[in-house]
Amino acid sequence: MVQLSYSQYNTVYNALSLVIASMLAATVFLFLSRSQISTTYKTAVTVSGIVCMIALYHYVRIFNSWEQAYTVLNKNVTATGRPFNDAYRYIDWLLTVPLLVTELILVMNLPGKEGTAKSTRLATYAVLMIVLGFPGEGATATGTRLLWWGLSMIFFLLIQYELFFGLKAAISQQPENARKMVSAARYITVVTWLFYPIVYLFPLIGLSGPTAYVSVQVGYSIADILAKAGFGLFIYVIALRKSQDEAETPGHKQNVVAL
Amino acid sequence: MVQLSYSQYNTVYNALSLVIASMLAATVFLFLSRSQISTTYKTAVTVSGIVCMIALYHYVRIFNSWEQAYTVLNKNVTATGRPFNDAYRYIDWLLTVPLLVTELILVMNLPGKEGTAKSTRLATYAVLMIVLGFPGEGATATGTRLLWWGLSMIFFLLIQYELFFGLKAAISQQPENARKMVSAARYITVVTWLFYPIVYLFPLIGLSGPTAYVSVQVGYSIADILAKAGFGLFIYVIALRKSQDEAETPGHKQNVVAL
Repeated sequence: MVQLSYSQYNTVYNALSLVIASMLAATVFLFLSRSQISTTYKTAVTVSGIVCMIALYHYVRIFNSWEQAYTVLNKNVTATGRPFNDAYRYIDWLLTVPLLVTELILVMNLPGKEGTAKSTRLATYAVLMIVLGFPGEGATATGTRLLWWGLSMIFFLLIQYELFFGLKAAISQQPENARKMVSAARYITVVTWLFYPIVYLFPLIGLSGPTAYVSVQVGYSIADILAKAGFGLFIYVIALRKSQDEAETPGHKQNVVAL
Repeated sequence: MVQLSYSQYNTVYNALSLVIASMLAATVFLFLSRSQISTTYKTAVTVSGIVCMIALYHYVRIFNSWEQAYTVLNKNVTATGRPFNDAYRYIDWLLTVPLLVTELILVMNLPGKEGTAKSTRLATYAVLMIVLGFPGEGATATGTRLLWWGLSMIFFLLIQYELFFGLKAAISQQPENARKMVSAARYITVVTWLFYPIVYLFPLIGLSGPTAYVSVQVGYSIADILAKAGFGLFIYVIALRKSQDEAETPGHKQNVVAL
């Protein structure tokens, strides 16, 4: 394990605890607030809460793993030799990233087959993006890390292409009180998701040893709060507005999953 | 770690447990009572419960950290050398204080953009207030502690100014059966929040060593019960009254988040 100073150890420790508290708050808020959302958009909010709940579970595990990996005595931090399991992050993303793109498609309420086709395609890209990123995460060789980063980025870019060009027509059909927010949700996805490939490269851009190690942990923690809890609350507000629009517009139709 | 007597150790120990019980009670009460509140004010009560739940999480962590920091045997209290993590308080405030001001704005049901603008401004001040307080908390030098206290207090005063002058017009538009309580909620904010900057200064006003240490822990604990559980219940009563007023007034309109 990397040798850490007391304040480096604490920075990661407190960042992980902050994520636990944030995910707990977002999960409970989204689950409770479902009751204020119309049937059409309830699933989008349910899925947003599920994403935060999955992250909550993984961050409790990561926190416990972090505590086990070090002994702190009189401000001296010693590695115990027990592993810090970083794979939890990838297992988390494998489940949550496909669900994050699904949240957006669900809250857009695309007609039948279009919604299913788009979310399947986006979720597939998401899984490939995560799976291809994993082999490089543990790599110390610059070439290896960059190779997997590049392969993973292909699918990152495909997702962004799909969100910006593939959803263009659908966005113009959103009700007026939510159109801007639905469009903004795509930008939020780009910005919050960009954290991950940048954090991934931290060890290559001059950050090394304990500093790189701490920066990666803190960076992923902030990225997860923004991309999951932050994005989930944004989806909730869209769902709330569209629910109100629906209540004022007679003859509204819910589009359900079509296979 | 500070050397404590058996009764000093127990005072903090029992104060922390009192907070856990209070936050648990308030969280569950607010979540259950949501069902008696009209749609318009439900989110205010949800957020009040979320605040108490976040505090509950942090106080369980603080309690566990306190237990680990000392060994108590035959009424002798010995420091174990393991850290007592005071940073939990700041992480808690970072999340809960912006939510506390949001509770008040939500229960006031200000029209569209006004509500969003006011809660964004207040939440930003709140975050700056907490972030600027943190560097001084661990400081032992009087000057350093006072400097950060002063910087933090600027935003404390800006919040109070916004609550008293910025919300004046909006308060006169509250329904009669809740107007006085909404107005009083601002005073409760000032009084309960004033605990924090005073407790912060304990080490500077003659309280030193173990006495200062115990007083800070107990002081923050009492302040948290009043400002979170107490304030949350007050918001709930306002929401309940306004729900009743709404049921008696036809054509009532819910103002939703506008960005």
